[in-house]
Amino acid sequence: MTQQNDHQAGRRKFLIGMGSAGLAAMTVPILTSAARGAQKIWDHEHEVVIIGSGFAGLAAAIEAKRQGAKDVVVFEKMPVFGGNSAVNGGLYAAPKTPLQKKEGVKDSPEQMISDQMISGRGVADQELLLHVAKHAREALQLTIDAGAEYLPYLQQLGGHSVPRTYQTTVACGAGIVQPLVKESRKLGVQLINRSKFENLIFDDSGRVVGVAILQGYYFGHDQPGKLINVRAKRGVIIATGGFAQNIGLRQAQDPTLTAEVGCTNPKGATGEALLEMFQQGAVPVHLAYIQSGPWASPDEGGFGYVSNYSIYNFPHSAAINCRTGQRFMNEIADRKTRADAELACRDAEGKPLPPILITSYKHAKKHPNCKKVLRYGVGWKFESLKAIAKKFNIPLKALEKQVKQYNDYVRTGKDEQFGKIMEKAKGKYLEAPFTVVRLWPKVHYCQGGVKVNVQAEVINATTWKPIPGLLAAGEVTGGIHGVSRLGSCSIPECMVMGMTAARTIMKG
Amino acid sequence: MTQQNDHQAGRRKFLIGMGSAGLAAMTVPILTSAARGAQKIWDHEHEVVIIGSGFAGLAAAIEAKRQGAKDVVVFEKMPVFGGNSAVNGGLYAAPKTPLQKKEGVKDSPEQMISDQMISGRGVADQELLLHVAKHAREALQLTIDAGAEYLPYLQQLGGHSVPRTYQTTVACGAGIVQPLVKESRKLGVQLINRSKFENLIFDDSGRVVGVAILQGYYFGHDQPGKLINVRAKRGVIIATGGFAQNIGLRQAQDPTLTAEVGCTNPKGATGEALLEMFQQGAVPVHLAYIQSGPWASPDEGGFGYVSNYSIYNFPHSAAINCRTGQRFMNEIADRKTRADAELACRDAEGKPLPPILITSYKHAKKHPNCKKVLRYGVGWKFESLKAIAKKFNIPLKALEKQVKQYNDYVRTGKDEQFGKIMEKAKGKYLEAPFTVVRLWPKVHYCQGGVKVNVQAEVINATTWKPIPGLLAAGEVTGGIHGVSRLGSCSIPECMVMGMTAARTIMKG
Repeated sequence: MTQQNDHQAGRRKFLIGMGSAGLAAMTVPILTSAARGAQKIWDHEHEVVIIGSGFAGLAAAIEAKRQGAKDVVVFEKMPVFGGNSAVNGGLYAAPKTPLQKKEGVKDSPEQMISDQMISGRGVADQELLLHVAKHAREALQLTIDAGAEYLPYLQQLGGHSVPRTYQTTVACGAGIVQPLVKESRKLGVQLINRSKFENLIFDDSGRVVGVAILQGYYFGHDQPGKLINVRAKRGVIIATGGFAQNIGLRQAQDPTLTAEVGCTNPKGATGEALLEMFQQGAVPVHLAYIQSGPWASPDEGGFGYVSNYSIYNFPHSAAINCRTGQRFMNEIADRKTRADAELACRDAEGKPLPPILITSYKHAKKHPNCKKVLRYGVGWKFESLKAIAKKFNIPLKALEKQVKQYNDYVRTGKDEQFGKIMEKAKGKYLEAPFTVVRLWPKVHYCQGGVKVNVQAEVINATTWKPIPGLLAAGEVTGGIHGVSRLGSCSIPECMVMGMTAARTIMKG
Repeated sequence: MTQQNDHQAGRRKFLIGMGSAGLAAMTVPILTSAARGAQKIWDHEHEVVIIGSGFAGLAAAIEAKRQGAKDVVVFEKMPVFGGNSAVNGGLYAAPKTPLQKKEGVKDSPEQMISDQMISGRGVADQELLLHVAKHAREALQLTIDAGAEYLPYLQQLGGHSVPRTYQTTVACGAGIVQPLVKESRKLGVQLINRSKFENLIFDDSGRVVGVAILQGYYFGHDQPGKLINVRAKRGVIIATGGFAQNIGLRQAQDPTLTAEVGCTNPKGATGEALLEMFQQGAVPVHLAYIQSGPWASPDEGGFGYVSNYSIYNFPHSAAINCRTGQRFMNEIADRKTRADAELACRDAEGKPLPPILITSYKHAKKHPNCKKVLRYGVGWKFESLKAIAKKFNIPLKALEKQVKQYNDYVRTGKDEQFGKIMEKAKGKYLEAPFTVVRLWPKVHYCQGGVKVNVQAEVINATTWKPIPGLLAAGEVTGGIHGVSRLGSCSIPECMVMGMTAARTIMKG
């Protein structure tokens, strides 16, 4: 590194003293080291400061406590804790788990990341993936120890070569977030809501030593709030999630993702901390890769009830193009493959014509969401294919022929149309009565973010060294999954990298 | 915009006064407005400051002069002017040109961008593309007025629906850069080399009012240089090109693009100004989309002689997988499609096995580079298919069968293997003697960069408004082309957006 690079890496930081006095008035002098002692700089002081209260933030908080931190604080900008994690699918993939042992599934971290590398189209970060896969079981145990409850059987999600996915009994990420919040509090972590991260504060060596926080923040309201400076004695962990709800930023990457396109994330997923890290020299990675969930329904908002219903049912269901009456994809291909196939389902004028997912009711009803899907009118029960064809204006003969053909694949175990693995469909013929939901992709997950190493340290784009005192974990980081993330691989990533960040900070 | 956002947009700028005194010592006070007058801040003062001397920078300089600017300076960090533009292919696509009229080709800006949108996989910026296409002829004329010379016929490059590409007579971008440099000097533009852009300088309203420049800079050497502050009275235009030679940044996006992978760009394409703009709040767009040129040869460095040779010859040549003796792609598909197909050519152990391009010598020799390709041993002449098969260890019978089949497609005008448009191959059978080159993709172009609007203004990621006084043009900007850029569409983009930046700055 040249002297010049030193200048670049260290310059223009939001230095100590600026936060309290200088935000509005940019002309206030930066305090010199000598002068600093004379002025009150910090409103609060903590050992570990965590921004964001989803899986990654909570895992970091709990692990920091376990590693001996006396004073850990989590700031959350929204009124409720949990962020996008609280409304996600609650699906957790891990190799070599007790359930895999019980079900006789052979698996390994290497096999899991091999599936992920394929879905990532060759540009995933193999080192990070392996780190997560190797620690996924341990992090799963942390959630169980905290009180999370899972269904007693595994699922095999699209793109996974074996069943390795746990599902919370409540079919939602809240089934993990709530126990983690409780456990955090039990351990003495301070959780503070309505507190928006504004910016990092550096000392003059270029180390992150604190954050500016806007207290009394009401999301979506135009109010000044109260700005405080919070010292982070060991460092700051950014765990603020993705930017799927930042319409400008997502549309800059993909002009088709307008405000009208559905999104599974809560409104708060707007990525301000991500942008702040870019402004402090973090490496932008893979922002262009934004994943749409192929299991979502156009008939409800957000993640809704249908998503987990269809994730569970895809292996033994047929997805049908309403215009042709035929299947149009492998129902358990990776997310991008399926989302692209669904988006291609159009009427004669090229307008969206959401395809349907047909499942035998006797199998569909085994998923806890089936009742809700029917009750809230985002899915329907039918006594015959004829009734389905009538409701969705599908050519009946083509549909009947397709279902007969599909049942042949169930019998032979070989899908000759799209090469779907039929193992999980064994014996599960499509038979009346049926349940049906409509499918249309929703913006779900941002593969992009800041670059981190396997210690969860944020890398500087000029020096390629970690930014001292700054760590990040979860969806706010980028590059690990590549072009397309496999389902149920986000929670293990968030949990493991959150724990990793805590371990790094406690060692440092 | 809330008050809070105002803070964000305006904060942590490299304020006036910091550049001269504060780079090394971050604790020096920022000057207040009152104090500023007392200190010498600027070493030099210009009306328009342009960073980078490729197509975009030179077009901006010339256009600024034409719009009445009295004092325009261009800073170039390398010893020679022209950057990557000076070694690129010198291919220029434009609709409704004199050559299209002469050759009876029907075309329009809308048709051109329709081709570009397909190659961009739906995420290109339609508004920017249309702006460029509509002004491409005018900008072409600027190069001709400056003295650029083009071949008297059009080429139809991969992914273009009609012939619309001009080619400099020297088969290189230098055939445009040199006339533009000459024209700039004639108009009184100051061109200063070995001057590395360090950072932007803002006033306390958040407006870019100057740049810090490291003078006496020797690329790749570890030296302090002399740092000067240059005032830009009207504003700054960043035209510094892509980051194909920044191994860390390109590998963060695609781990396979290691230092060992070939690159057509000069060593200086390292993207420092791009990173500086991100640090000042510019929107990172599409950094993940890095294009490899499918026409490059593994037998020479950089862009070399083969690239333009093969671009010219693809329409009437057959690309052959040496392992199978068969074609493996549409030789005029878009760049990404072809690069991916070439990268899939492997030996039995999965190691790269570069495919070959077979052309009839009588057609190949019409391109000015053919002689050089043969002279420098990066291409070879053969009297028979047997000789080719022997040299490259290709199964002879399969090769003979493939060439016979290909010649059938030439006769019928229909490629039944890959759907290649055979119009340009009409009557051009593959016949001995042949010339052959090897193909392997090289990192060529970064689709990603900072987001700009059609006025070439750089957009702030928090406010979504232009950063006052900051414009950017050419490869340093991102999003216009989407996933894959069509060949010969970069020069018109650079020229038009450079001119646009100059017009905006002269109006402002």
